[in-house]
Amino acid sequence: MSEVVSDVVPKVVERAAALLRQIRARNPRVHCITNTVAQAFTANALLAAGATPSVTTSPEEIGGFVAGADGLLVNLGTLDRERREAIGIALDAAGSRLPWVLDPVFVERSPPRLEFARSLIARSPAVIRLNAAELTALSGEKASVECARSFASRNGTIVALTGEVDVVTDGSRLVNLHNGDALMSKVTAMGCAGSAFVASALVVERDRWLATAAAMTVFGLAGELAAESSDGPGSLAFAILDTLHGMTPDTVVEDAWVEA
Amino acid sequence: MSEVVSDVVPKVVERAAALLRQIRARNPRVHCITNTVAQAFTANALLAAGATPSVTTSPEEIGGFVAGADGLLVNLGTLDRERREAIGIALDAAGSRLPWVLDPVFVERSPPRLEFARSLIARSPAVIRLNAAELTALSGEKASVECARSFASRNGTIVALTGEVDVVTDGSRLVNLHNGDALMSKVTAMGCAGSAFVASALVVERDRWLATAAAMTVFGLAGELAAESSDGPGSLAFAILDTLHGMTPDTVVEDAWVEA
Amino acid sequence: MSEVVSDVVPKVVERAAALLRQIRARNPRVHCITNTVAQAFTANALLAAGATPSVTTSPEEIGGFVAGADGLLVNLGTLDRERREAIGIALDAAGSRLPWVLDPVFVERSPPRLEFARSLIARSPAVIRLNAAELTALSGEKASVECARSFASRNGTIVALTGEVDVVTDGSRLVNLHNGDALMSKVTAMGCAGSAFVASALVVERDRWLATAAAMTVFGLAGELAAESSDGPGSLAFAILDTLHGMTPDTVVEDAWVEA
Repeated sequence: MSEVVSDVVPKVVERAAALLRQIRARNPRVHCITNTVAQAFTANALLAAGATPSVTTSPEEIGGFVAGADGLLVNLGTLDRERREAIGIALDAAGSRLPWVLDPVFVERSPPRLEFARSLIARSPAVIRLNAAELTALSGEKASVECARSFASRNGTIVALTGEVDVVTDGSRLVNLHNGDALMSKVTAMGCAGSAFVASALVVERDRWLATAAAMTVFGLAGELAAESSDGPGSLAFAILDTLHGMTPDTVVEDAWVEA
Repeated sequence: MSEVVSDVVPKVVERAAALLRQIRARNPRVHCITNTVAQAFTANALLAAGATPSVTTSPEEIGGFVAGADGLLVNLGTLDRERREAIGIALDAAGSRLPWVLDPVFVERSPPRLEFARSLIARSPAVIRLNAAELTALSGEKASVECARSFASRNGTIVALTGEVDVVTDGSRLVNLHNGDALMSKVTAMGCAGSAFVASALVVERDRWLATAAAMTVFGLAGELAAESSDGPGSLAFAILDTLHGMTPDTVVEDAWVEA
Repeated sequence: MSEVVSDVVPKVVERAAALLRQIRARNPRVHCITNTVAQAFTANALLAAGATPSVTTSPEEIGGFVAGADGLLVNLGTLDRERREAIGIALDAAGSRLPWVLDPVFVERSPPRLEFARSLIARSPAVIRLNAAELTALSGEKASVECARSFASRNGTIVALTGEVDVVTDGSRLVNLHNGDALMSKVTAMGCAGSAFVASALVVERDRWLATAAAMTVFGLAGELAAESSDGPGSLAFAILDTLHGMTPDTVVEDAWVEA
């Protein structure tokens, strides 16, 4: 077991270190169906990381955008009628070609959103990124590392469970990611932007678990480094964009904190 | 009269000084029905102040969000069909449990918005926060301190009239708030975020007039302090978030400028 | 020919130098029908430049807003049903009184958007601001300076073709604008905000070609100067607002880089 563990950690760090360079080189188009609050910050995070975002939720248009996209995010914030309709069309257009990320924001607050999220999980998202309250609502049991693991296995997906320590698991493989800063929770759309970044990582790495773990490592580290030079959540919001834009592989190798 | 006055000012300052600490401790959920321009900045201002925002305007979902909220803002910017419907549902869900803040943005520009705002005032907002043009349109007389006072009395509400000096009155009590900076008017959604902050103050202080005066003092002071260290409206937009996040009671006591 | 050229360049620079002062003095109301991602940044750019933005896309309200506006932007991002309907009403309300700017964002990605954009060009926008991919889609030929020139002539409009060097032409007059910075393309809504700024320039300068060339010069220069003091796209996003707010005529005269 320790050999396996000692394999996993350097692999995630190595993958994380190369990630931004590869995204910049590929410049993937990532279509983001996301909430109205998060659209601008999410688009800026993807641009800073080297991807090209699009965000329309118009049912008339989304098919064309998804057909030309390399990645897809489905975030359930501000889930209005148009977004519900757009999500269905987008998933039809994505088919099995595009792996997609589900971010079930605030499902614990709204019964119709919870029901809709369950119907989406049946459509096989590659990754579900959520916090403890959201996992509790979706799984019907108190969120924990074991709950994340079994939820991932049961649904054939990757679960990225965020919190003080982030957990990324496909049911068998599992890492704990310690990078990040508490101040990140004081900036709206920070998690939503992180989910979009995971969607861009899926374009350049076929191993979905590895892509997710690498992307979560890079994003957490970018927030952590940005927080160090910030006076509060306002300056963190722009500093993380600068950091994503300028971050080098060496920084990732030096400062990534990944545990199996 | 001077004894009354000398009572009122220190009471507002004292309440303002304690406000951020109390909001941080309580971490109230504040649901904001607000315009599409203001959503992200408003959410960031509430997070910086220690509250938790939600902003959906989906009629299917808003009932659940308001049922779980501690505070409610109704801002009339970008007033589309969905927002009109959502506002009605939200006020039904709020009932008499949740005091709510009305921000009748740009009612002087749009006759249907003005009519809708009047129908909302009949549903007893706890606070109406507006500028002179908006008060003139709603009251039918030229905005003034006396107009604000009589409008508050007539409608059984608190009026927060913004301008170079802000006035907060319940019809009998009245204070003039001098904190703030002209540069704040060059940042979109600054006033909208201020109204959301008032909604969060109503959660921790039952005296609605006092809550409003305290919140307007803190927000104006945060803008004033942030403007001092800003090179323009762009840097002010993030600096006010840093300031709200870090401001201490001592700063409020030292720099609040309240007059009866 | 060289005399004509030597006339044109100083005229654009002189007009650019005076532009911000005139916008600040006039404080025009500019109504922006723009995508959900761009609304806040666009509003902040107009406020920083001295204009007053409004952004509603509600069909019930937009007529009133456009009737009271001095300028109008029609940006086709996130083109949902409401926006399509609102654009028709807005153009009816604008009539021949208001020159308007068309920004056909991402028309190459969505066939219905391309068709809608063509129907709008038939309604005589004063200016069309677009990039090479958008011009290629709309004109049906590979984008080039000559293509921009003939497209402008054919449609009786000004074309502002953006790229490493921006080209502004009415079919006969043409300038190349070299100000700007590659980092600007890493901030979402930067181009959308630039188009809104062109709409505000049309209010203070009746020669539409000159207004467009001057506005594009100022906006590109603001981005270039802001980029010099930025650590990345996050800080550029606020620094360009500070720069627009504080830029003086002398700076424009010294640093504008215009070629015929």
